[in-house]
Parts: sequence; structure tokens; C-alpha cells
Amino acid sequence: MSVLHLSELQEHLRVFADERHWSQLHTPKNLVMALGAEAGELVELYQWLTAEESVAATGDAQFKVALADELADVLIYLVQVADVTDVDLPSAVSEKLLKNLRKYPPPAGSPPSS
Amino acid sequence: MSVLHLSELQEHLRVFADERHWSQLHTPKNLVMALGAEAGELVELYQWLTAEESVAATGDAQFKVALADELADVLIYLVQVADVTDVDLPSAVSEKLLKNLRKYPPPAGSPPSS
Amino acid sequence: MSVLHLSELQEHLRVFADERHWSQLHTPKNLVMALGAEAGELVELYQWLTAEESVAATGDAQFKVALADELADVLIYLVQVADVTDVDLPSAVSEKLLKNLRKYPPPAGSPPSS
Amino acid sequence: MSVLHLSELQEHLRVFADERHWSQLHTPKNLVMALGAEAGELVELYQWLTAEESVAATGDAQFKVALADELADVLIYLVQVADVTDVDLPSAVSEKLLKNLRKYPPPAGSPPSS
Repeated sequence: MSVLHLSELQEHLRVFADERHWSQLHTPKNLVMALGAEAGELVELYQWLTAEESVAATGDAQFKVALADELADVLIYLVQVADVTDVDLPSAVSEKLLKNLRKYPPPAGSPPSS
Repeated sequence: MSVLHLSELQEHLRVFADERHWSQLHTPKNLVMALGAEAGELVELYQWLTAEESVAATGDAQFKVALADELADVLIYLVQVADVTDVDLPSAVSEKLLKNLRKYPPPAGSPPSS
Repeated sequence: MSVLHLSELQEHLRVFADERHWSQLHTPKNLVMALGAEAGELVELYQWLTAEESVAATGDAQFKVALADELADVLIYLVQVADVTDVDLPSAVSEKLLKNLRKYPPPAGSPPSS
Repeated sequence: MSVLHLSELQEHLRVFADERHWSQLHTPKNLVMALGAEAGELVELYQWLTAEESVAATGDAQFKVALADELADVLIYLVQVADVTDVDLPSAVSEKLLKNLRKYPPPAGSPPSS
């Protein structure tokens, strides 16, 4: 089962940054910029691919390694932004899912979603 | 303890998209664009704030709600990209942390990081 | 003929910002964030469209107005970044075109490009 | 005086792409992704700089070359998006300036802006 231990990850990243004296760089403003830049690298991976090629690309081992690397970068900065701003990500996601459920109600006749 | 159940979240999002007939829209290419657009909204929240204001902003309840909402959006699309490309996010993050440890070795005299 | 008078535009934007006491906000850092956020809005316009729909979309008057609006936003911030960093955009573009010509030489048998 | 000849630049870029058989890649969707990715590289240049450092950075010749290069990349893709979508950038900017003037009227006592 795939579980992400956010507290442990945040603690690890905090110690890692502290040891390298990066903590003062890790303002919310700077971290969201870093996240934005990494999101740009993720977009760059797919910019010239057709929809079909974007699906097939995952079958290319080298592409998949590059993709996993970029996804990890985005996630790491996301977890750091949440850490320095004291946002609980699982709660934020739960709130958003409820909001989306109200915004996009299930079509008539759908089985109740989990 | 803060834990994110990725498998459950991916399953929830998959059912949610299926019920609304969105699955064909959810190509990797489209989902990374959506992630990029949400990252832009996150950057927008902080664009005119000074470093100090970006730290203080979290004390503003309304700002924090908007921030949590944007972080959730990025995370939701990230989890969906990982789902359609079959990338295991916790493994990708672990790989990245090892890579960063090699790239930025701890300064001499540091206690071993966890 | 379509000509963009950059000096005039930069002057107009500078006066506009000064009158509203925005100049101190217009650091290079803040302006590139604003440009990044606007680029995100541009990406958002196209995120769920297929390649074909992205071509056809321009035929929709409402879409085209929204697109022109986002392109103008990106260009305005670009011109402001160039202003506060004293980068001459036409020279920067010329340099880049030469660099691209060396990086991607014309295929054999091509007529010389202008 | 700094003038950007958009028609000439668009024509040059069109020929350049045609010669290399890139035209089919240059859908609006793909080009806005490329613009978004370049905007991310621009943001990356400034992500760890303080506001003051972001102002001072332009005094560093190497930084300025990198910056000019990224600004040119964004502008080139912007001009290509405008080309394939038939948006007239100077008109789009004029429209936007008028819109901004209505949205942010000059403060009382300001001299009329040009």
C-alpha cells in the first residue's frame, strides 16, 4: 500500500535544510517559486508530445525516471511549503474533495462514490 | 500523525473522474498542464508580498484558506499524474532524497541526519 | 505592419506604476512571479483541449478575447521585467535567434532563411 | 529607440520552424506549454534571491546574459502563440492598458498619464 508519511518527510527536509544553513532561504515566497519552477520542468517533459505520445511515454524507462524525478521535486517543495505555512495537507485535500463534490455533483444514476 | 493515503486518494479521484466522464481528458499531458496552472495560482498568492509578509501571511485566516486550497489543487493533480503514469510517489521521493544527499553532502561536523 | 514600441510601452507602464505607488513592488523577483502566474493562466486556457481543439479555439470569439488578454498580461510583465533589469528585448531576441541557428542548423538543401 | 518588428519576427520564426519540419508541433496547446516551461526557468533564476539581491543581480554580467536568454525564450514563444492564433499583440496590449486604466483609475491629483 502506498502511504506518504508527511510528518517524517517534513522533519527530514527540515533537518536537511538546517544542516546546510538553507532555512533562511525557505520563506513561503521562495518555496512557491521553487515549486513553480519545478512544475515548469514537468510541463517541459510533455510540451511536444501528442496526447497519445504522452500516454505511451511512460513505457520509456528513461522518460519515466525523468518524470518520477520531477514529480518528486514538486512534491518535496509542496511538503516544504505546507511545513513553513503550517498547512495540514491531508485536511486540505479532504476539504477540496468535498468542495469538488459540491461543485460537480455526481450525474444522476451514479453509484455513490467512496 | 499526518499521513497521506495515496492509493485511496488515487482510487477516489479515479472514480470521481470516471463518473463524470472525464477520464479521456486525463492524459498525462493535460494533467501536467493543470498542475502547472495551479502552481501559477500558488505563485500568484505570493507575488507582491515581501519575504517577511510571506511568512506573516499564514497568520491571516483568509489567506491560509486560499493557500490550503491551492496546495490541495497542486497535490491532487500531482497524485493524478502519478496515477496515470504509474509512478510510485513515495519511491520517487525516496530516490530524490538519496540523490540530494549525494549532491549536497552534509557539512563536516554535522550529526548524521535521519 | 505590426510593430511594438517597447520604449513607449515601458515608459507608459513606469508612469502608471509610479502614479499608483507600485514601483517598490516592482522588483525583478516580484515581476517574474507575476509573469509566471500569468503564464499559468495561459496554460489553463488550453489544459483540457485536444491539439485540434486548441487550433479551432481561436475561431471562438470569446476564447480569442480571453487569449489576447492573457497574452497581453504576459507581454506587459515581460516588458516590465526587461525595464527594471535593463535588458534590451530586441537584442536579446536577436542573440537567441543566432544561438538557435547554430543549435539547429538548416537541413541540407534548404534555401537560406531570412 | 527600441522597437520590436513583430511581423518580421513571426515570419522568421515560421520559416525557421517550417525548414525543420516543426510546424505540426506548433499547435497553440504545445506552444503555451513551451511558454509556461520557459516562464518556469525565469522564475528559477530568482527563486532564492532576496528582493535586494534580485535588483542587484542585473549587475552580474553572467546573470544578465542568462536573464536576457530566458526573456527572449518567453518572448519568442509568445510571438509564436500570437502567430498561430492570429492575435495582434500590440492591439491586445492596448486593450489591456485601457482595461487597467479603468480598473485602477489614477489617484486624485495625478497629472494625466501618457
